[in-house]
Amino acid sequence: MGLAEALYGRVYVLRLGHRPGRDKRVTTHVALVARAFGANGLILEGVCDEAVEGSLLKVLDRWGGRMHYECGVSGRSYVREWKRAGGEVVHLTMYGLPVDEVIGAIASSPKPKLVVVGAEKVERFYYEEADYNVAVGNQPHSEVAALAVFLDRLFKGRELYQHFEGAKLRIIPQPRGKKVVR
Amino acid sequence: MGLAEALYGRVYVLRLGHRPGRDKRVTTHVALVARAFGANGLILEGVCDEAVEGSLLKVLDRWGGRMHYECGVSGRSYVREWKRAGGEVVHLTMYGLPVDEVIGAIASSPKPKLVVVGAEKVERFYYEEADYNVAVGNQPHSEVAALAVFLDRLFKGRELYQHFEGAKLRIIPQPRGKKVVR
Repeated sequence: MGLAEALYGRVYVLRLGHRPGRDKRVTTHVALVARAFGANGLILEGVCDEAVEGSLLKVLDRWGGRMHYECGVSGRSYVREWKRAGGEVVHLTMYGLPVDEVIGAIASSPKPKLVVVGAEKVERFYYEEADYNVAVGNQPHSEVAALAVFLDRLFKGRELYQHFEGAKLRIIPQPRGKKVVR
Repeated sequence: MGLAEALYGRVYVLRLGHRPGRDKRVTTHVALVARAFGANGLILEGVCDEAVEGSLLKVLDRWGGRMHYECGVSGRSYVREWKRAGGEVVHLTMYGLPVDEVIGAIASSPKPKLVVVGAEKVERFYYEEADYNVAVGNQPHSEVAALAVFLDRLFKGRELYQHFEGAKLRIIPQPRGKKVVR
């Protein structure tokens, strides 16, 4: 078993600054990307949001896999606890170091990883506490995209072929049209 | 100049099914990902949305680069025109063929590419007219993530180091904190 495989199940995503209503779709995308790209925990800082939770649970029920989910937690405490427990913290930010420069070090460490993604403005605390501030391009774009590309680099593309346990539905890839089996 | 570079400026993104209000954030992410990951056209099908256009224009003004932008067009006509003019059409869908199976063929063709991303449900027409129906993982996640990973594969990761002409702001990557130069 390679390290990329060993890391499955040891990557959580901490979503900061979610505003219910306003951010519900983008945070749902964050949650579904976390699942589809090999993370298995989603932590919503500060608030809870039934819309996000409902979408995630529905996908887990139909398409399988398991995710740890928490909401309404203090982001600062979560980061501190994660580090105290021996994990490392990766903060995705356009101001950070290029992902290609640091992904080797991140991927070769067996430490559980907490990947922090913000909404608009992220407090200085997270820049300081992160083991790595990582940029997926130093341009403004999307935390959804940054998370997907970061996890894709971390798992070397193999996350796209994960097996999701307990799936009720499975797609048979087609050149045209849709084929889903139960 | 390699083919990946030759393709810069020849990749447009067609966003289907945008609903103003409801989708404004996600479509803005689609637009900013298109720019940051090396596409240089964004076409909004059916409607216009000042919120999306405003965000894109603001980023172009500050961070540079050029994008062709159109809105309120007929998606069907656009696809037909694109093909008539010698381009090819790539539709991103979880039901399609794995990106790694088809990216070689797509990247090695010099044809201008129209990358089609839907919102909720996409009409059969697009599955049938697309030269490639491509899945970035056969799991439900996000058109923002699918677009980013597709373009990242197409441009072999080099899109993250693009130069954006006319930028007023530029980030100097930092291990901690933010450094922006004018």
